Amino acid sequence: MDFTPSPKTQDYLARVRAFVAAHIAPVETAYHQENLAANPGGDWHTWRVLPVIEELKTKAKAAGLWNLFLPDAALGAGLSTLEYAPVAEEMGRSLLAPAVFNCNAPDTGNMEVLHYFGSDAQKQQWLGPLLAGDIRSVFCMTEPDVASSDATNLQATIRAEGDALVLNGKKWWATGLGHPDARLAIFMGLSDPAAAPHARHSMVLVPLPTPGVRIQRMLPSFSEFDPPYGHGEVWFEDVRVPKSNLLVGLGQGFAIAQGRLGPGRVHHCMRCLGAAERALELLVRRGLARTAFGQPLLHLGGNLERVADLRMAIDQARLLTLYAAWKIDAQGVKAAMSEISAIKVVAPNVLQRVVDAAIQIHGGAGVSLDVPLTALFTVARVLRLADGPDEVHRAMVARVELAKYKPAAPRP
Amino acid sequence: MDFTPSPKTQDYLARVRAFVAAHIAPVETAYHQENLAANPGGDWHTWRVLPVIEELKTKAKAAGLWNLFLPDAALGAGLSTLEYAPVAEEMGRSLLAPAVFNCNAPDTGNMEVLHYFGSDAQKQQWLGPLLAGDIRSVFCMTEPDVASSDATNLQATIRAEGDALVLNGKKWWATGLGHPDARLAIFMGLSDPAAAPHARHSMVLVPLPTPGVRIQRMLPSFSEFDPPYGHGEVWFEDVRVPKSNLLVGLGQGFAIAQGRLGPGRVHHCMRCLGAAERALELLVRRGLARTAFGQPLLHLGGNLERVADLRMAIDQARLLTLYAAWKIDAQGVKAAMSEISAIKVVAPNVLQRVVDAAIQIHGGAGVSLDVPLTALFTVARVLRLADGPDEVHRAMVARVELAKYKPAAPRP
Amino acid sequence: MDFTPSPKTQDYLARVRAFVAAHIAPVETAYHQENLAANPGGDWHTWRVLPVIEELKTKAKAAGLWNLFLPDAALGAGLSTLEYAPVAEEMGRSLLAPAVFNCNAPDTGNMEVLHYFGSDAQKQQWLGPLLAGDIRSVFCMTEPDVASSDATNLQATIRAEGDALVLNGKKWWATGLGHPDARLAIFMGLSDPAAAPHARHSMVLVPLPTPGVRIQRMLPSFSEFDPPYGHGEVWFEDVRVPKSNLLVGLGQGFAIAQGRLGPGRVHHCMRCLGAAERALELLVRRGLARTAFGQPLLHLGGNLERVADLRMAIDQARLLTLYAAWKIDAQGVKAAMSEISAIKVVAPNVLQRVVDAAIQIHGGAGVSLDVPLTALFTVARVLRLADGPDEVHRAMVARVELAKYKPAAPRP
Amino acid sequence: MDFTPSPKTQDYLARVRAFVAAHIAPVETAYHQENLAANPGGDWHTWRVLPVIEELKTKAKAAGLWNLFLPDAALGAGLSTLEYAPVAEEMGRSLLAPAVFNCNAPDTGNMEVLHYFGSDAQKQQWLGPLLAGDIRSVFCMTEPDVASSDATNLQATIRAEGDALVLNGKKWWATGLGHPDARLAIFMGLSDPAAAPHARHSMVLVPLPTPGVRIQRMLPSFSEFDPPYGHGEVWFEDVRVPKSNLLVGLGQGFAIAQGRLGPGRVHHCMRCLGAAERALELLVRRGLARTAFGQPLLHLGGNLERVADLRMAIDQARLLTLYAAWKIDAQGVKAAMSEISAIKVVAPNVLQRVVDAAIQIHGGAGVSLDVPLTALFTVARVLRLADGPDEVHRAMVARVELAKYKPAAPRP
Repeated sequence: MDFTPSPKTQDYLARVRAFVAAHIAPVETAYHQENLAANPGGDWHTWRVLPVIEELKTKAKAAGLWNLFLPDAALGAGLSTLEYAPVAEEMGRSLLAPAVFNCNAPDTGNMEVLHYFGSDAQKQQWLGPLLAGDIRSVFCMTEPDVASSDATNLQATIRAEGDALVLNGKKWWATGLGHPDARLAIFMGLSDPAAAPHARHSMVLVPLPTPGVRIQRMLPSFSEFDPPYGHGEVWFEDVRVPKSNLLVGLGQGFAIAQGRLGPGRVHHCMRCLGAAERALELLVRRGLARTAFGQPLLHLGGNLERVADLRMAIDQARLLTLYAAWKIDAQGVKAAMSEISAIKVVAPNVLQRVVDAAIQIHGGAGVSLDVPLTALFTVARVLRLADGPDEVHRAMVARVELAKYKPAAPRP
Repeated sequence: MDFTPSPKTQDYLARVRAFVAAHIAPVETAYHQENLAANPGGDWHTWRVLPVIEELKTKAKAAGLWNLFLPDAALGAGLSTLEYAPVAEEMGRSLLAPAVFNCNAPDTGNMEVLHYFGSDAQKQQWLGPLLAGDIRSVFCMTEPDVASSDATNLQATIRAEGDALVLNGKKWWATGLGHPDARLAIFMGLSDPAAAPHARHSMVLVPLPTPGVRIQRMLPSFSEFDPPYGHGEVWFEDVRVPKSNLLVGLGQGFAIAQGRLGPGRVHHCMRCLGAAERALELLVRRGLARTAFGQPLLHLGGNLERVADLRMAIDQARLLTLYAAWKIDAQGVKAAMSEISAIKVVAPNVLQRVVDAAIQIHGGAGVSLDVPLTALFTVARVLRLADGPDEVHRAMVARVELAKYKPAAPRP
Repeated sequence: MDFTPSPKTQDYLARVRAFVAAHIAPVETAYHQENLAANPGGDWHTWRVLPVIEELKTKAKAAGLWNLFLPDAALGAGLSTLEYAPVAEEMGRSLLAPAVFNCNAPDTGNMEVLHYFGSDAQKQQWLGPLLAGDIRSVFCMTEPDVASSDATNLQATIRAEGDALVLNGKKWWATGLGHPDARLAIFMGLSDPAAAPHARHSMVLVPLPTPGVRIQRMLPSFSEFDPPYGHGEVWFEDVRVPKSNLLVGLGQGFAIAQGRLGPGRVHHCMRCLGAAERALELLVRRGLARTAFGQPLLHLGGNLERVADLRMAIDQARLLTLYAAWKIDAQGVKAAMSEISAIKVVAPNVLQRVVDAAIQIHGGAGVSLDVPLTALFTVARVLRLADGPDEVHRAMVARVELAKYKPAAPRP
Repeated sequence: MDFTPSPKTQDYLARVRAFVAAHIAPVETAYHQENLAANPGGDWHTWRVLPVIEELKTKAKAAGLWNLFLPDAALGAGLSTLEYAPVAEEMGRSLLAPAVFNCNAPDTGNMEVLHYFGSDAQKQQWLGPLLAGDIRSVFCMTEPDVASSDATNLQATIRAEGDALVLNGKKWWATGLGHPDARLAIFMGLSDPAAAPHARHSMVLVPLPTPGVRIQRMLPSFSEFDPPYGHGEVWFEDVRVPKSNLLVGLGQGFAIAQGRLGPGRVHHCMRCLGAAERALELLVRRGLARTAFGQPLLHLGGNLERVADLRMAIDQARLLTLYAAWKIDAQGVKAAMSEISAIKVVAPNVLQRVVDAAIQIHGGAGVSLDVPLTALFTVARVLRLADGPDEVHRAMVARVELAKYKPAAPRP
């Protein structure tokens, strides 16, 4: 349980930090404004990727800061979950950095799925281009018509017909669906309604575009469409793909999802904490720079207590996330279920709280786009729903806690 | 301290409710979508008011549901602050209703300023058209370069030059500035830097457009520009208006602001509570309609406890707001300073909390525009900053509390 | 819904306040110390009532400040629930006052039960002496062996045998059981296990002492035994009382309990708020008097914000309690179930929060007996359990909220 | 930053756990009852140590489970702060264990002071008997007449007179002062009022009894006197001790206090977390064992969410405390000031929160002495004041945070 960053981590951390400082930070504000102007509103048909992004990606690749999330040493950087965690935090300080380093959700999770569960042919077709950053991908799980927090509710269907699989159903919150380079959707659907609840669903690879895949609209979150990625509502109407597009086997959907989500949640949470650090930094800098009633804002009322409370909250959340990462590495995702759920509750809530306080100290500027606070707020607020809402994760933590008290269990 | 709605209130309440049900609710969702399509992004030059708004305003005026906020019986409905409060709450359930009934901020506050502090000529020129709903107005107080929570910081200037007043300075968060009908700005500026802190500023009426008034941009709040009103950043550069545009007299800026804000804060808070009731209704309806793990969402985990806590919070906030309204009517704004500050903290925070919970139970839909929850969230979050941030109001409540313990004070 | 104290209330309020100031406050600290010395620990056999109490009661009776809680104009003061509420708050500022004015729980509730549900003979035997303050009484409901928060769990039994009722079972938290003048216990037990859940229990009057009633021990709450009242554990072993001691009729236990608890909870809550006001006063006085780091404690860190938050919390809780009182008077206990449950959650929690903050600002003195803060804390903490724990009351509030959305219900 | 318990820690942990299970847990309830009976109330003159304590101490010493807190390998167990931390947590599960293992406050802190700052003669006279468990000691710092949270306020005096030091002043909350074996007080007083604020005070060893040392009374905390230790108010009136009783040198009081408090706070916090684990265990066991409304209590309302939240809070607090311990070991107390203050806020607050929830689920039993919950609550509540109140520690954390933003500081 050694949380000291390994030499490899320290090296990557320093290089990522330097890269962000030299190449990303100086252009970030301009990027967001230009992006807003270039890709206004929700009309994804016209969205385009600003050239600066591809330039930055090329530089990052050249600098060896590429696919750091993937534990595989040949394809990625060979970092364990724990080793990658501080790097993810560092990337989380910037809204742009994860994509620049090819470490952005949901592509990372999709690449992990392909890496761990894809056949050689599937890997060749999809994993290569994704790792190269040439294409983007989406994950189609959540459905508009059912409470998807209970994933056994999912009702989109996968039907075998000869050599083909036929997909039907509505999905939404498919992040990245609006991206001009989106070429792959991973689709989760009900393949055997009669099986045990966690063996009913399967995952299928769907090339984009494929006839019958209809993008209905992009969904704003807090009025922001997040171009050029976007979050899409998409309907599958008799979409046919070859059976070879099935991942692993029929009924393996939940098993794959589980494996996908462990390290991915650590990544999400560490990025949250990087974002929280940035928001706290903005809070403190603003609070020291502005004066009211004869004093810097920070020295008024309970502001310093809030700074202290936020510092304690961030530090505790980070340690818990590192602990979850360590446990995943040491004992596997299954043994770390409670910790993974715990950080999934803790980290986004800490981020939301820090950002709310940072907004407050910025006054009107805080809710505008002059500072990235509402964007960070949205990250936090959405993440409290995505990948399982807080409530589902609290239930998991409680379940593991109660299991310690099963009859005949020794003292916990 | 009788909070039973008066017969007049009950009558207006029933009629407003019926009007909203018959005319506004049926078109509200379509309106917001059409408005989004008609007025995308922040380019206020192209903003227009959808015809349905003027139709609804005409109907509301015909129904006698017009200017209900104004206590003056001839010009308004003759309702006291306490009598109007439940009507404001009812309007707050809808994002559209306040404007339809000519009861929306900041026009209401500006009309009050003109009504109470304007000269006859000023009233004739501006109050009439505002009460008729023919023009819209803005209030230019907050400045981008200073912490405006301490209003003595305001540094825009008013300089007398012969028969003219010359205005200079930057203002922002001037709500309504983007409206095609915006014709009047009330400008607060420093007129005598050598006077006592609360006698340094004055208020001046500025026709729109006037040379030197430069709208720099509209400001999004949580990425939403709120067309066709908008919140503007506007620079005043040697703007000249006749001295007769001065309100009351030089150095009276704070006195006017104080008078303006008392009832206005009650209106804001009651609208917040209407919004909170609507969010709670959405929460309960969704929580009963959706099922997970074999139960309606509401029956899972702590959801019912949250419903209870929100109900208690809303009811308490309403009673406190009614109490503040009563105290304003009975003892005047000055005697009610602590209560006014208290509700200004309590009501928006309650709304934020209710909406956050409602978003959570809606899952992804909650952060989209399919339900009005992010719009209500933004109302709450912005109101925790506007008209004085939470911290300033807490300081006021504490100040009044401590004053009870001045030497020789009897037991509080 | 007029919360202005009625002239009668104002008169009683002024007189109670003057009486407390003149007669109780000056002796209160000495009383508690003497009481602690006279009645140490949990040995209730030796407990005695200090003479000062009887002297004060005599004075209070002479001053006409006696049984003010009872709405009956002949036996009490004829105050409605709403009218009595501010008087209860005033009494709640002192730990001693309620008993001095014969307005202390559980005697008040027991007198109400006798007044509303007792036969003439029962009233003559018990209500008279209780109203005179000559005897004290206890209420035996909660049981050690079952979760009594679900009162249908109660398993003590009432068996008819000829002209007698035979009682068996264990009760605890019977407040007042240690009092030298305790002469009556109201016992709730299962009389018909086959009936509908809320018709299974009955209430019986048990003279003290009666053979078979065995006081096992007094229970400390936070190490305090509260002499000379105390909270007892008592076992009933084949206790025989005449059938005429039955209240109302067999199976009426819940109906009586319900009627007993409505106004009683308003009393509890208003006393809580009086206690909260006192704690806030102690907090402010101490925070102004003590200096650290060159400033009065109150001006350090977030202390003033806390004062503001506590003031807002108290004021809101008071208004909600007055509203519940008004609703009981206007529409009856049944219509006010949600509000009664709401205040039962809100008021003790507000008190706990205020006291916790007051302790903090007192430092070590706060947890000692030099100030009454731990006693007030215990009042709050225990009341979050007594008369139904927070959770049961939240469930009630949620239940009433959801009932608004029953099919075909109009908009709430 | 490796938090894996070292082999030595694992060994001690297993042995402590086994010892507690075999020898302490079986007698603990009986001990507390017997102790309450033997040492009732606050009359410390009559207090005695029950024989079982000395028997247990003898056994612990024989088992090599003795003075484990002391990093010195010869005198203690040679455990670093981080290595001892889990052992302290384990001891914290029991209210009795720390004293049995000679690891209880304030003796541990006093032994550390003597070990690190005492002269050879001082060590011989006092450290030996303390390490042997033959005598007990007290720490006299806090004063009743000033806000001791700002230790520069302390006004008790130390005056040199020839070969003697003359001590005057009032102290309170001197824990252990009532113990029959109390033989040493460490006294902190103002020795040079003209020096710099943190060089004004000195520490002096005072044998007990010494003429002029007058124990005024024992102070209850939440009505509990904690015999046979107790918390005393003691007045020093011209108390004379030889100059050789001075620790280190004049003006070194703060330097010594600082060194004393670092590891001591880790011990306190880890014991808090052991106590929190115990309270959570009691909560879960009770919540599973009791039934209401047809279900185990834990499955009602938000109880499972609370369990999850408490688990997350405890785990985060533990990791933060281990991190602080590690930082003390790796970089010294001074570098770890912010972390030490952070845990001092976090851990007692977590304990208070867990215990409050555990009390709630126990109903009336929770506030009685049938379970140790009010005792644990008092531990938490008092610790939020002792060794610096929450507010002082939050201020420290904020101070360190702001220091990162000093001009020219690089990005934090």
